[in-house]
Amino acid sequence: MNFSLPAIAPLNDADLRTRLQACIDQKTKPLGSLGQLEALMLRLGMILGSTQPQLQAPQMLVCAADHGLAARGVSAYPSDVTWQMVDNFLQGGAAVSVLARQHGLQLNVVDCGVARAIPAPVPDASQPHAPRLLSYRVAAGTQDASQGPAMTAAQCAQALANGAAVVRALPGNALLLGEMGIGNTSAAALLLVRLAGLPLADCVGAGTGLDAAGIARKQAVLEQALQANAAATTPLEALAALGGFEIATLTGAVLQAASERRVVVVDGFITSAAVLVAARLAPAVLDYCVFAHHSDERGHTAMLQALGAQQPLLHLGLRLGEGSGAALAWPLLESACRVLREMASFASAGVSQAD
Amino acid sequence: MNFSLPAIAPLNDADLRTRLQACIDQKTKPLGSLGQLEALMLRLGMILGSTQPQLQAPQMLVCAADHGLAARGVSAYPSDVTWQMVDNFLQGGAAVSVLARQHGLQLNVVDCGVARAIPAPVPDASQPHAPRLLSYRVAAGTQDASQGPAMTAAQCAQALANGAAVVRALPGNALLLGEMGIGNTSAAALLLVRLAGLPLADCVGAGTGLDAAGIARKQAVLEQALQANAAATTPLEALAALGGFEIATLTGAVLQAASERRVVVVDGFITSAAVLVAARLAPAVLDYCVFAHHSDERGHTAMLQALGAQQPLLHLGLRLGEGSGAALAWPLLESACRVLREMASFASAGVSQAD
Repeated sequence: MNFSLPAIAPLNDADLRTRLQACIDQKTKPLGSLGQLEALMLRLGMILGSTQPQLQAPQMLVCAADHGLAARGVSAYPSDVTWQMVDNFLQGGAAVSVLARQHGLQLNVVDCGVARAIPAPVPDASQPHAPRLLSYRVAAGTQDASQGPAMTAAQCAQALANGAAVVRALPGNALLLGEMGIGNTSAAALLLVRLAGLPLADCVGAGTGLDAAGIARKQAVLEQALQANAAATTPLEALAALGGFEIATLTGAVLQAASERRVVVVDGFITSAAVLVAARLAPAVLDYCVFAHHSDERGHTAMLQALGAQQPLLHLGLRLGEGSGAALAWPLLESACRVLREMASFASAGVSQAD
Repeated sequence: MNFSLPAIAPLNDADLRTRLQACIDQKTKPLGSLGQLEALMLRLGMILGSTQPQLQAPQMLVCAADHGLAARGVSAYPSDVTWQMVDNFLQGGAAVSVLARQHGLQLNVVDCGVARAIPAPVPDASQPHAPRLLSYRVAAGTQDASQGPAMTAAQCAQALANGAAVVRALPGNALLLGEMGIGNTSAAALLLVRLAGLPLADCVGAGTGLDAAGIARKQAVLEQALQANAAATTPLEALAALGGFEIATLTGAVLQAASERRVVVVDGFITSAAVLVAARLAPAVLDYCVFAHHSDERGHTAMLQALGAQQPLLHLGLRLGEGSGAALAWPLLESACRVLREMASFASAGVSQAD
């Protein structure tokens, strides 16, 4: 099968941009005094096509899958933690579950290819906003990328199409990205190396908590993976050879969300890797992205540079993933929209302007 | 009159600290992976005396007053903007009004000594959570500190006592600090110079938006104020000579809030100056403070260093004041408490731990 790239319009409505900036500058505050929140107001207004933007039915999308590479000891945790954490998401006990409840984000957990299939919980009609499991399994985990491609081209296309299908079925105008998959900082690092042409050492980090020796072992395995997949140089080839089912599904989701003019809230290192692939396929997706935070995972600094995203919203030293950083940043997006909609202008409030 | 310093207990319950850290470390996440949010969880748990802390009835306290120094051209805006913005707060059109509504923060605006007295709006019983005006006026603005003390010792003591009285009458266990007063970055800079022994040039910034020439004029006026009040060296003398009614009222509020074990959420440069005075009077107040953000106002970096507060929560380039940064950071405090209360442990969720 083939994945067909949706059409994504760059956000270049100069008239709207001018009106938004005028709106921001006339609010009762010193010019520019809301700092990065003003840049966020402009971006959200541009995406949602309004000087009075309103976020609706935000969807947290946590894509989960397993990685053949995990058997090579690239993580501090065993692969079983992937399905255990998916269960934890659904039971409401994970960080992203708690934060999604706090902010009214619908939590959608997608089994994109977890090694052990996860039984969907019986829906409880009395709790329509409970976490949901969506089953879009491509296979029971990828192959070991240190020995050859992690997935076939057809599997990769399937995962991309799955991501698009998931988003098409979701309501609302904002998508928050999250992920779970033991071994997936390895896949993200490999994609960063291959697509941005960076040295491997700048892209490999502690993941869930490797020590220095563990990071050295991880780096050696990833070096093998790069060699075993040296011919995979286009974005789609690299995604298939070095990525993971959750990353490919997220890539499809990002492309579809941007094509529908949804706000895409990017979490940390792994979801940024999906955005990197998407941006290499369709650069305009970046117009729709809000980068939630600067992660403590080593490669994220280089990743944000590769994406031209030097000003993520939060700098809290997070390195948990799951979408937790996206969820923590969410109230700032709400604030940006509310300030645009509800804050008075100098004229409407009768406040004197600067000399 | 004299202001009597309330007793403030340092937070040194080693047993609670150990239990909190164990609680944090047993959550289903890699050790330390929630970064600064974990430090916040520890702090809030220590202040509220529980491994299951719960924030209740948060109160935004916006103290407003005018400054004699404003007549010397230290601000880009005229003094009239102080009462105009107080009116804007009460009408719901200011940034802090919008953000307080968003987060369910009760907005209390205190007239501590605005030049033009503000009529209290008629309370609307159908809107119990509407913004409130509290009248604790010491005088119609301070004297010009470049010519002598901004206030008398008695006025300063009155403002401190007012701040304590305001807090005693408020419900809840968390106080967010905000302020309004044309000229008050000047007062804050003067207090920083005098109490932390820093060069004036490191403490003077653009305030509401001065250009380089304006900042030079401001600095010359502040130099005069330091010379005119050279003998004011103790914290209380400095506060009276160089401060403002809103800063003194906030200082009293901070001391009272800490003595009642409330969480104190500090906004930007001016509210930090009130905390600086409070900390010089009773160093333990700092145990109760959460610094919301790193402001773009020039002196705030030095101020945070003087307070030993190198890790504020947000870095958004804000320089608006009003309590807007404290309000923007508020959901992170809520998140920290919810994660402590609601997130599963490895044992309770049946998740495997790291090797």
